[in-house]
Amino acid sequence: MLIIGERINTSRKAIEEAVEKKDAKVIQDEAKVQVEAGAQMLEVNCGTRINTEPEDMAWLVKTMQEVVEGPLSIDSPNPKAIEAGLAVHKGRAIVNSITAESERAGVILPLVKKYNSQLVALLMDERGMPKTSEERLTIAKKIMGLVTEYGIKEEDLYLDPLVRPVSTESEQVGEVLKTIRSIRSLGRVKSIVGLSNISFGLPKRSLINRTFLALALEAGLDAAIIDPTDPQMIATLKASNALLGKDEYCLEYIAAHREGKLKET
Amino acid sequence: MLIIGERINTSRKAIEEAVEKKDAKVIQDEAKVQVEAGAQMLEVNCGTRINTEPEDMAWLVKTMQEVVEGPLSIDSPNPKAIEAGLAVHKGRAIVNSITAESERAGVILPLVKKYNSQLVALLMDERGMPKTSEERLTIAKKIMGLVTEYGIKEEDLYLDPLVRPVSTESEQVGEVLKTIRSIRSLGRVKSIVGLSNISFGLPKRSLINRTFLALALEAGLDAAIIDPTDPQMIATLKASNALLGKDEYCLEYIAAHREGKLKET
Repeated sequence: MLIIGERINTSRKAIEEAVEKKDAKVIQDEAKVQVEAGAQMLEVNCGTRINTEPEDMAWLVKTMQEVVEGPLSIDSPNPKAIEAGLAVHKGRAIVNSITAESERAGVILPLVKKYNSQLVALLMDERGMPKTSEERLTIAKKIMGLVTEYGIKEEDLYLDPLVRPVSTESEQVGEVLKTIRSIRSLGRVKSIVGLSNISFGLPKRSLINRTFLALALEAGLDAAIIDPTDPQMIATLKASNALLGKDEYCLEYIAAHREGKLKET
Repeated sequence: MLIIGERINTSRKAIEEAVEKKDAKVIQDEAKVQVEAGAQMLEVNCGTRINTEPEDMAWLVKTMQEVVEGPLSIDSPNPKAIEAGLAVHKGRAIVNSITAESERAGVILPLVKKYNSQLVALLMDERGMPKTSEERLTIAKKIMGLVTEYGIKEEDLYLDPLVRPVSTESEQVGEVLKTIRSIRSLGRVKSIVGLSNISFGLPKRSLINRTFLALALEAGLDAAIIDPTDPQMIATLKASNALLGKDEYCLEYIAAHREGKLKET
């Protein structure tokens, strides 16, 4: 599973302040610590910076790529911020995100094509958030049609079934797991989830997040946006990989233990 | 899910010594601590006491039932020990276990019927341990036939798909999960697993055990033999129940947190 580190987001106060002061060290330390913890890609989101989002995104992308090699997930609702990030990004980025709403997709998909990036699509459309896995799959097929029209390859598309808070919409957990299973039958497209929303409003959020990660991995999840510096999250990921036949003879699990990476707290 | 506490087993040195000395306090403390931690039933196994197993079993059952109300799971390969335990047990016990091997079943099933107990059946037969979920299901049907012949009800039968160590037989994890899913289609029979075998030979066994518990619960597991005094095991169980729609509005999860039962270590 592809691990995308979620920590560089201006909704976090420390990141907001670092962006405001253009404090490169804070951002670069956050980037490095996530890669060291196992992230293969890093999210970058400065959506709270409404007035300066494009400049801030460009600065963040450049600042992060001075210290980490891996590609970035450029996360914004604003096409201008997405393009500002893509224009300075080295290598192939991933754009997060489009929905099946065609107007917005019509602006962002040409950017994805122009910069040869990958893409996250949220399984929702003009009618809002879907309830069932069937509704999500209908939207998935619509998005796959749209993406293909722009000459973007299926294997560059990640579909996000939209995790909801289990505290208020517990029936949605099963629908999301079912959607992840179904995405495997759609071809070379991949599944992705942002984990943290699942535990919104609950105590011990990491416990809910990592337990859900195990279930989602069993369903076939391809990528997750997580906090890789949470040691129990990484421990659950390693244990799940061992259990799900993705770690022959548990060699990676045992190696992680020897490196002190299976910490319980 | 039914939680069966596994700690009263003479393969543990402290228990072996307590049985040798007939130290009721050690046994009763182990019984109470497991029930307080959430066990609804307690396993009792003195299989290492080859020469005195029937007397020891009777003593253990009486000693435990002086302090805990819940039923016991009488776990022995020896029909004499099983009968000695059943004869003194108050209420309905559960007998653990038979296999599809008809000779052995022919001795134990009449005891199950006579004492009106419940029953665990291991999904194996004369040919040894099955490899695939299909083989396990064939054996399950054979066992259901045997049990019915003796007038034992389907709802009193727990089928154990036999968890193997993931370190050496990782492909068996998926077969076991598939078997748990399939057992749900067999009628009113239930599924049960002993968790600890999954992590045999690996470091951080509790991490593997609890991650497997989450996956097994998602597959529909009805009962598990676990160490209920492992706080992270109980935390994973509560989180899984919340995620799997077995805890409306996460009220039990939140209550467990308030009672300090969602400990991370």
